[in-house]
Amino acid sequence: MSKVTADISISLDGLVAGANPSLEQPLGEGGEQLHEWVLGLEAWRRVHGLEGGDTTASSELVEESLASTGAYLMGRKMFSGGEGPWEDDPNAGGWWGEDLPFVGPVFVLTHHPREPLTSKGKTMTFVTDGLDAALAQAREAAGKKDVAVAGGADVIQQVLAAGELDELQVNVAPVLLGDGTRLFDGAAPQALELVRVVDAPGITHLKYRVAR
Amino acid sequence: MSKVTADISISLDGLVAGANPSLEQPLGEGGEQLHEWVLGLEAWRRVHGLEGGDTTASSELVEESLASTGAYLMGRKMFSGGEGPWEDDPNAGGWWGEDLPFVGPVFVLTHHPREPLTSKGKTMTFVTDGLDAALAQAREAAGKKDVAVAGGADVIQQVLAAGELDELQVNVAPVLLGDGTRLFDGAAPQALELVRVVDAPGITHLKYRVAR
Repeated sequence: MSKVTADISISLDGLVAGANPSLEQPLGEGGEQLHEWVLGLEAWRRVHGLEGGDTTASSELVEESLASTGAYLMGRKMFSGGEGPWEDDPNAGGWWGEDLPFVGPVFVLTHHPREPLTSKGKTMTFVTDGLDAALAQAREAAGKKDVAVAGGADVIQQVLAAGELDELQVNVAPVLLGDGTRLFDGAAPQALELVRVVDAPGITHLKYRVAR
Repeated sequence: MSKVTADISISLDGLVAGANPSLEQPLGEGGEQLHEWVLGLEAWRRVHGLEGGDTTASSELVEESLASTGAYLMGRKMFSGGEGPWEDDPNAGGWWGEDLPFVGPVFVLTHHPREPLTSKGKTMTFVTDGLDAALAQAREAAGKKDVAVAGGADVIQQVLAAGELDELQVNVAPVLLGDGTRLFDGAAPQALELVRVVDAPGITHLKYRVAR
């Protein structure tokens, strides 16, 4: 059964990015600390076209996600960063590079029409008619596999608020960022079901099932 | 070596209390869900003068805290709730009852002078000359044992900001409250060291060492 999942790293104070994010520093001040746990993993490096790397208790979770994901839903800021007239810039989103680090097609929720990006058989499609339409396209592309909501926080919040999120894994980094972008900001009150806790080097993985 | 510790339950969205706390509902809307994990524990019930109860993976942590705590530091709101001219009310803080559920003396940080409360050999002392003075009194009372910062969030934030917190255990409840009082609100950016993860029924205990 296909699920809609989200998997995102946060600071202990609940932030997915530090203060003052910019094109140069898309994760804001200190935000890179949230992702240190994954950068050295062999599983992550392989998807990013890199050799070598470590295997930790996190590796199995990354492999599991890669194996179960059929398509991605992504917010516009995560595609091209910050605010600005990015739609006039043919290089917007260029940081994703030619080797797109995804195991399925990506659907970017945006207000700005744009031709799909294709690189080495992988595609990023821009959907301008709203969350429901983007999710429907991602679901169709995913088939029996899952739709992974790749972030950022605002898209995860939208999917959660729409009652469309099945599973949420938060990876809690042992750091306080103090200020930045919250994963949860005015979410509707609700109980979740804790599914799994994995205590891995540099990160704590907490996976919850969301009632629908 | 005596430590200053804090141990507090939060929602997955980082709140220690829900919206609209009041004297009648001091934990705000939905806030009682943060503490459900502890109410049925034999260890907790014993300290509150109640019989029976369960033993779970959380019990060892509660016992550990009871054994290591020599004194408490508490905020004024946690003593008597909300805003208001409580200092004119001889019954303020009355919810703590006659069987004070503490294993050592309590020092309440407040702006309002008040005579100590004593009940069955246990005391609550009101300190009006600031955090440093209150911590010093609590440390002296604790001796070789620890000072537990009992909350609320504002006092934990003050102790953390003052660089006086040694250990922080957050107990993450599987619930989103949406709005309320944040445990961390504009904390100074800093790295922590994860000491222990305990996956217990209804709660996830994450214990961190704070660099001083």
